[in-house]
This record gives sequence, structure tokens and C-alpha cells, in this order.
Amino acid sequence: MIRGISDTRLVGREGKTENTVVDVGGVLVGGPDIVVMAGPCSVESEEQLLATAIAVKRAGAKILRGGAFKPRTSPYSFRGLREEGLKLLAEARRATGLPVVTEAMDTRHLDAVCAHADMIQIGSRSMQNYALLEEVGKLRVPVLLKRGFSATIEEFLLAAEYIASGGNGRIVLCERGIRTFETSTRNTLDLSALPLLKRWTHLPVIVDPSHGTGLWWLVPHMARAAVAVGADGLLIEVHVNPQAALSDGEQSLRPETFERMMNDIGPMAHAMGRGW
Amino acid sequence: MIRGISDTRLVGREGKTENTVVDVGGVLVGGPDIVVMAGPCSVESEEQLLATAIAVKRAGAKILRGGAFKPRTSPYSFRGLREEGLKLLAEARRATGLPVVTEAMDTRHLDAVCAHADMIQIGSRSMQNYALLEEVGKLRVPVLLKRGFSATIEEFLLAAEYIASGGNGRIVLCERGIRTFETSTRNTLDLSALPLLKRWTHLPVIVDPSHGTGLWWLVPHMARAAVAVGADGLLIEVHVNPQAALSDGEQSLRPETFERMMNDIGPMAHAMGRGW
Amino acid sequence: MIRGISDTRLVGREGKTENTVVDVGGVLVGGPDIVVMAGPCSVESEEQLLATAIAVKRAGAKILRGGAFKPRTSPYSFRGLREEGLKLLAEARRATGLPVVTEAMDTRHLDAVCAHADMIQIGSRSMQNYALLEEVGKLRVPVLLKRGFSATIEEFLLAAEYIASGGNGRIVLCERGIRTFETSTRNTLDLSALPLLKRWTHLPVIVDPSHGTGLWWLVPHMARAAVAVGADGLLIEVHVNPQAALSDGEQSLRPETFERMMNDIGPMAHAMGRGW
Amino acid sequence: MIRGISDTRLVGREGKTENTVVDVGGVLVGGPDIVVMAGPCSVESEEQLLATAIAVKRAGAKILRGGAFKPRTSPYSFRGLREEGLKLLAEARRATGLPVVTEAMDTRHLDAVCAHADMIQIGSRSMQNYALLEEVGKLRVPVLLKRGFSATIEEFLLAAEYIASGGNGRIVLCERGIRTFETSTRNTLDLSALPLLKRWTHLPVIVDPSHGTGLWWLVPHMARAAVAVGADGLLIEVHVNPQAALSDGEQSLRPETFERMMNDIGPMAHAMGRGW
Repeated sequence: MIRGISDTRLVGREGKTENTVVDVGGVLVGGPDIVVMAGPCSVESEEQLLATAIAVKRAGAKILRGGAFKPRTSPYSFRGLREEGLKLLAEARRATGLPVVTEAMDTRHLDAVCAHADMIQIGSRSMQNYALLEEVGKLRVPVLLKRGFSATIEEFLLAAEYIASGGNGRIVLCERGIRTFETSTRNTLDLSALPLLKRWTHLPVIVDPSHGTGLWWLVPHMARAAVAVGADGLLIEVHVNPQAALSDGEQSLRPETFERMMNDIGPMAHAMGRGW
Repeated sequence: MIRGISDTRLVGREGKTENTVVDVGGVLVGGPDIVVMAGPCSVESEEQLLATAIAVKRAGAKILRGGAFKPRTSPYSFRGLREEGLKLLAEARRATGLPVVTEAMDTRHLDAVCAHADMIQIGSRSMQNYALLEEVGKLRVPVLLKRGFSATIEEFLLAAEYIASGGNGRIVLCERGIRTFETSTRNTLDLSALPLLKRWTHLPVIVDPSHGTGLWWLVPHMARAAVAVGADGLLIEVHVNPQAALSDGEQSLRPETFERMMNDIGPMAHAMGRGW
Repeated sequence: MIRGISDTRLVGREGKTENTVVDVGGVLVGGPDIVVMAGPCSVESEEQLLATAIAVKRAGAKILRGGAFKPRTSPYSFRGLREEGLKLLAEARRATGLPVVTEAMDTRHLDAVCAHADMIQIGSRSMQNYALLEEVGKLRVPVLLKRGFSATIEEFLLAAEYIASGGNGRIVLCERGIRTFETSTRNTLDLSALPLLKRWTHLPVIVDPSHGTGLWWLVPHMARAAVAVGADGLLIEVHVNPQAALSDGEQSLRPETFERMMNDIGPMAHAMGRGW
Repeated sequence: MIRGISDTRLVGREGKTENTVVDVGGVLVGGPDIVVMAGPCSVESEEQLLATAIAVKRAGAKILRGGAFKPRTSPYSFRGLREEGLKLLAEARRATGLPVVTEAMDTRHLDAVCAHADMIQIGSRSMQNYALLEEVGKLRVPVLLKRGFSATIEEFLLAAEYIASGGNGRIVLCERGIRTFETSTRNTLDLSALPLLKRWTHLPVIVDPSHGTGLWWLVPHMARAAVAVGADGLLIEVHVNPQAALSDGEQSLRPETFERMMNDIGPMAHAMGRGW
């Protein structure tokens, strides 16, 4: 069923049976509690970021997400505040105490990202950027590795193996939807990947229903399903004013919807024997 | 987002806001309770069917499924007991009291299926068999319409509209996985289709995690997720001896695993405010 | 590479090495000449059909295509003139001498189609309508079997095997595009299927670039490529007034464009050592 | 049909109507002649590279391809000779006079690649590595941009626009197959992309049937079809001993098969009014 399994000697179950728990600035991912990472798609301003960070913390998020380097399909779209965005993330961490995860798109970004963030995100389009995976493998910083939008589960595990083979085992996997023929949703969230990954790897696995659906009102539904299928956490886009967002506004929750979603997943987590 | 929405005048929400409840031999699908339909992929013998029917009833299934006419990729595979299989299904109904759902693959099967079953299944490969949909539309028998494995949600709703436009509104939709590039699973179960369908149509929607994954051990996981995302029911393949099954053995649950699955979804159903 | 190959005992190369030539009303498909089948998507009226038939014959088409029973995604679209359309096709045959191919969507259509046409088309949505394949297998009429838009090459060959196993070996295969994530074209025409099919089966294989692209101006380009890759024929939609067509107008050629296309493929056919 | 067309202001037809011709070390891509680029998947040794280079030149190739930095799915596969491989490519260029194209996977590779090669290849997995595209945009070196294996044509053009918007308009596009549900071939070569790209952009477009099919014996067939559909060139993997290749052996042609392929495409090129 998974041909390359022999090459997942470090991230595969054959090498290690107990589950890996990744410490992100004091927050444990892969332990008994479901960890919610939330925040805006892009860091846009100090006010936007701080207001969002405070709101998601109040609602129960444990880690702040926000993009400083933004991969955008068109060169004429907003591509992020870059270094300035990283500084704003570090400020928001000081103000709220929330550890921060943000994306690095290039090997040259890694020093700056490591200086300001607690966890490096490798985005979907970079899952097979092997030069980047190699460099991240040399660090000892937690990594959030998102599944490529057209990567098989086998390729996903082998991308993680790249990082692990460099010596960095602090990897959290993230299912975020795959590209299919269906056009009603931005991607098709592949929730069956969760139990499959849990069986084949000891790494924690979280779900991103924001990119997985592309539609904000679908997010709480798929968040519930993700918890029901064994996710160790969620990655959720939240914006204080989605209609004014510089990116991904249609898939971002308002703080009040996010709060309802957090209440909503409680009974699911409870039914799964998890805290949250 | 859904171009053909203007053509879903009967099955779409614009025509009718309250949810449709379909009565299948006294069992209400689309009401407060989650309805589990279970049984073997193929009817193989009186003993196999009866033993399975008794087991699934004991575990809480409300409707018996079983294939008499079997669509098989190769002409040299077992293609079902056909009329004989229908009679065995009717016997199992008498013995257990469970209403029966079974597939019709051709317009010429409809009389026989209607004579023995409580609900006609239109399989995934037949979702765009418009001649069959038209004939089923003339009946007043409940229909279980499975999504084509490469049908968009729009095409799925328009297939239901074919049936409804003939005058038969007793339709239950079933998400059963779509064909994608991923090869670890038989199909990719598209659970985001559930809240989308619930928003666009008033018809009940159930989920088939057996075909949706193709792997028996994934079925209970995806069944939980299906309930968490709002499914009105589940369609589950159960076999008393999966290794000896004439079709779909790898995705069939043993009765004891099915029973555990039924216990497993209870807290999920409860969290969703549903009985089961 | 092709798991089910052992089940293609009749249509596979292992059973028969020389190429099969199918005689369609005196026109040989699979012989040295490339055979072009052309005509409207739907038969709409006597005038429309006859004008188109005369035009395609003048340009070099050898077989007339036209739909009487039309599979349509919405029940509210034009679904064909049905029996009346078959009669118009038979008239056009008398007037032009062109043999006729037309689709049957249901087992109950077969008698009428056989009474009026020289070749039965099994459409893409019916490739896995096994009841229909079985009935067609009992006939001795040539069959044009179109690949399902999401069927693997293996499933395509096994559908042909269904027909052959019933005793009818007069099968012509047709590649007509598969469903992918790309939205610029209606389907993605899979031309690599041609040499693959030619290696695995002795049956003739033709290409339908009209459905394969969905855009009329792409048709002549893909027709050339189809000839270059070894197609035994082409299936082309032509309409005397595409803008007024009741179906598929955007992918239909005007007669003058069709004529240019026919001139265009000449040098390609010549380079391949084929007549046309 | 192509939503982002307004963002292709530099590479789109609206900005420039005449076709762009890219000069690669004196060889013109996009002019009247079809340009064949050939060589091994990976540079493995001086002997292997030189023998292959001499053979492809003799058969009519105009540019030498060879990988020094290799993106590989597993970290335990051969990942290329890297800097050493670049030196061997430069040597082969001196020995044969053939300009050289080779891949850069990371911004940090660009200096070395530019020092030794005539054209930088951006591989399929890097098509959305926007940091790399930006850096390449600052250079004045020809770029071979391969389509992402799951990129739409729109995304492909926008990736080219990234490079052009940096000031580097010397871009050659390459269709190399997309990921679909079909498993008989490594990818599905999307030849309809050729006329579509030719209509939407003034940039040259070539085809890679080696990756597009993954099977060496399919390559000459698809090479012919590529020429018939308007390709400005071909990218072909050739190895003196495919069975001993460290990567992609199954899709590499032996020199003698390559020579036959070159003879084979002549009549096609002629029919298209192209030299070669």
C-alpha cells in the first residue's frame, strides 16, 4: 500500500512505537490535549495582528499563526510584510505569551524566522523544496510541515524523513486539503489521511480546515470532523475583519465565529478522550 | 460557486426550506436519529446473509443492505445472485424485520427490485445513467442515490433533480468517496460535501466510509467523522467472514468490529444532538 | 503496470496478435485508412442534420455521427429527439450513403438503435453500465465504446472485455478526455492512451478531440496530434450553426473549419504511412 | 476561461503580439526550427555524460540537458553530483559545443549554475518556489520553466510572470505532464496545453515526454504528437545504459532509440512547416 515505507526509517512506526510530542515554546503538540493554532493568514499591521492574537488567545488558541513571507500565485498580489512582519509576530508573542509559528519559503529566510518565531512552517507549495527541508533538518527548531496540495501520503512522509534525516525530529505534520476535480471547495480535505498517518508515523498530525475548504462557514464543520478522526491539533485562519483581509478573507473566521467553533469542538474532544 | 443551482429547483433549498425525511419501511432517514444501514457487499448465500443481518441488527443497524446485482470491473468477477439474491434479501427482512436496500443497475431490474426491497440503490457508476434515473423518478419508492466517484457536487444534485423532476422526491443522497491521485485509499472520502449538501439541498445525506476508504480499519474512524460533520446516516459493509467474501472483503467489518464502531459513534451523535 | 491484464483475455494482445478491423456499413475502421466520423452533437431537425451530413461527406468524413438519445447533466436541458432522431439519421444515411453511429443509453434503446444505425455508441457516462455492455455483447453490431471520463485504461479495456465476452468482438475504442484539476479545457485529452492501448489490445482506437477539449479552436490541433500518435480515426462534432446548437455549440466546428482540419491532417496521416 | 489573465501583463499576448525567441548559447528557441534538448536525467560521471552528449549531438540535439542538483522524493536516493556535476556539464559543453541546461533547486545554487550553464531549469516541484522565481527574475540568463505537475495553465503563466516582472523575459515554458488518477503512466501529458499556451503567451513552449509518460517506449510517440501540436522543442532523457541509470532509467532512451525518434519527427516537423 505504501511502497516507500522502507525509506521512512526515522519517521515511520517501525523505528519508534511511542508517539512523538513536540514542544513549541512550552506548548506540547501530540500530547493528550488538542492544540489550536490560530491567527491571520497574513500579518498586515500591528493593530490587526495584536487584536487577532488577543481574541484567539481568549477563545482558547495556544499558538499564534501569521504569515510574514507569503507565497502568492500572482506576483502582483500582497506578498507579506517579510522581516517587518516577523518583528510584529515577536511583539504579539510578548504581549500575549502565545508561541508563534510562521512560514519560511526559502533557505535564506531561516535565520530571520528562527530569530523571531517558535516554529517554522513549511508551506504546501514547499513540501518538495528539498533544499529547504535539508536546511531545516540541520536546525533544532520545531517544524510544521504541510502536505503538498498534490502530494501522496507517501511523498508527505518522505518529505518529513528529509528533515528527520538531517537530525531534526521535531516535526508536526499538517493535512490541508488536496487538489481534485471538485470546484465547490478550494481543496478537498482528506481526513482519511489522519488515521493513515497515525498508523504509519509516530509524529503528531494536525488539520488546516481553512485552506482545506476555502470557505469560512465550512471551517467549524471540518474542525469537528478533524477532532473526531484523531487530529492532535487544528490550524485556523482568523481575522478581525475578513472582508478587508489582504489574503484569504473568504476562508477566515471572525473572532466570534472562532469562539463558537472552539466551544463546538469541546464535546468532540471529550468524546475522543482528549483535553483541549 | 454552483453554476447549475438554478436547475435544482426541486431538490434545492430555494424550493423548500424544511428538511425532507424519507420513510424507508418505517425507518425515518433525515429525522433526529442517525440511521445505520449495514450488511454484506454481495448477497452470497442464505446463511451468510441471515447471520450478517442478525448481527448488524443486534448492534443497532436499522436497515439491511446487500447487493444482488453487482457492478464489477471485470466480466469474470462474481456478478451477484441477481433474482435469487433479491429473494434472500426479502427472506432476511422477514426474519429480522429490517427494511432492505439493494442496487438496481438497469431499468429492467426495477420491477424485481421493487418487489423485494424497501429502497432502491443507484450506485456510483450509475449516477449519470439518466434512463435509470428517469424510470426511478416515476416510482414512489425511496431511492438511495450514491455520488458518482468523479461527479461534482453540482452534478450529484442534478442527478437527484432528474429523479425529483419525475415526481419521486423520496431521495437520500450518499457521499462515498471520489477518485483522486492518492493511492493509499481506494477513494478519497469528501466529508466537506456533507455541510455543502446540507446547505444546498433539503434531502437527507448519508456517508459510505466502506467504499470511501476501501480499508476496513479506516471505516470506524471515518464513521465518527461523518457523524461529526452532520451525516444523517451511514452505509457500512459487514461480513461474517471478510476473508471469504466474494467482493470487497478488505473493506468489510466483522460483526464484532461493527459493534465496536456502533458504540464508538454514540458519543459523537450525542455531541451533535442526534439520537442513533 | 496493468493489474487486470489477465482478465483481458479476449481484447488483449495475448489472445490475438493481428489488429482487428471493424466493418461499419462497409467502412473499415482499424485498417490502413484513418476514418473520420463527424456530425452534430444532437440531431435537431431534418435540415440541420442533412446540411451537416452533406458538408462532412464533401470534406471527407466516412461515417455520420449524431445523437438521438442525449445524456444531459440537467434534466431541464434538451435530451434529444429520441426515436424521431433515429429516423432522421436513417434518412441522412439514405441521402448521403454515409453509415451512421449513434448512442444508446439504456438496454431498452438497443432495438430502435439497431434498426436505424450501423454502429452503437456507448457514451462516456455509460462505460461502466454493465447491463448495457452485456446486452451489446449479445448483438453482432459494431460498437463504439468511449472511455469513461474518469476510467483508467485498465477499466476501459475491461469494459471492452465485457462486450467481447458476450460474443461481440466488433469494438472500436475511443479516447475522449479525462477529468483532471485543469479547468481551462472541458477535459484533458490523454493521447498517451493511444500507444498504450495499441500495445495492450488489438482493437482499433480513435480519438474525440471535441469532447476532449470542449473548445472548437483546439479541435484541429488535437486532431493532428491524434493522427501523429497513431489514432485509427477521429470523432468530430460539426454543426452548420454552432451558436444555435441545442448542445455542445462551443466545441462544434463549422463545416468550413472542419474542411480545413481535414486538409490539415493529410500530411500527418501521410507521415504516419496512413491513408485518410 | 483564465481568470488571472489580467495579471499576465508581461507574458500574456495582450502585452506583446510577436513571438519571443530565446537565445540559449546561440541556439534560438521559439524560431522556425524545433529545438531538441537531450541528455541524461542525472550527471553521473565524466564518461557517462560525454558519451551521451556526443551521441545526442550526432543525432541532432542542439542543447545538452543533465541534472547536477536532483530533487528526489526520498532523502536516501542519489541526489546528484552537485558542484562536481556542474563542472562536468561545462566540460561536455567544451567538448561538444552544445549549450547546457541544468536545474537550480534553491536560490543559493544560482551563482554556481550560472557560472557553468547556459540556461537555468526551474523544475516542476519548484514552479511555485516564488523566492527562486524572484531571484531568477533578476538575472539575464535564459530560464526553462517547467509546469508544476499539479499546476493549472493559469498558475503556470503566473509563475512565468514572476520571472518576467523581475526583468528577465528570456523564458521558455515546458509542459511535462500532470498528475491524474491514471496510473499506467507516470503523469498524463497535457498536449492541449500547447495551443492554449501559444494563444495566451508569446513565450516559446516545449514538451518533455520523458517525464510526461515515465515509459521510454512511449517517448517517441508523444514526441511526434508534441511536434504535431505546435511545440517549439522537446526535452528528452537519454542514457547510454538506462538499466544502470541512477535515476529515471525506465523513461530514458538509448542513443539508438533517440536517433530513430529524431528521424521519426522529421516528417511531422516538415508537415508543420518547421525545420528541426
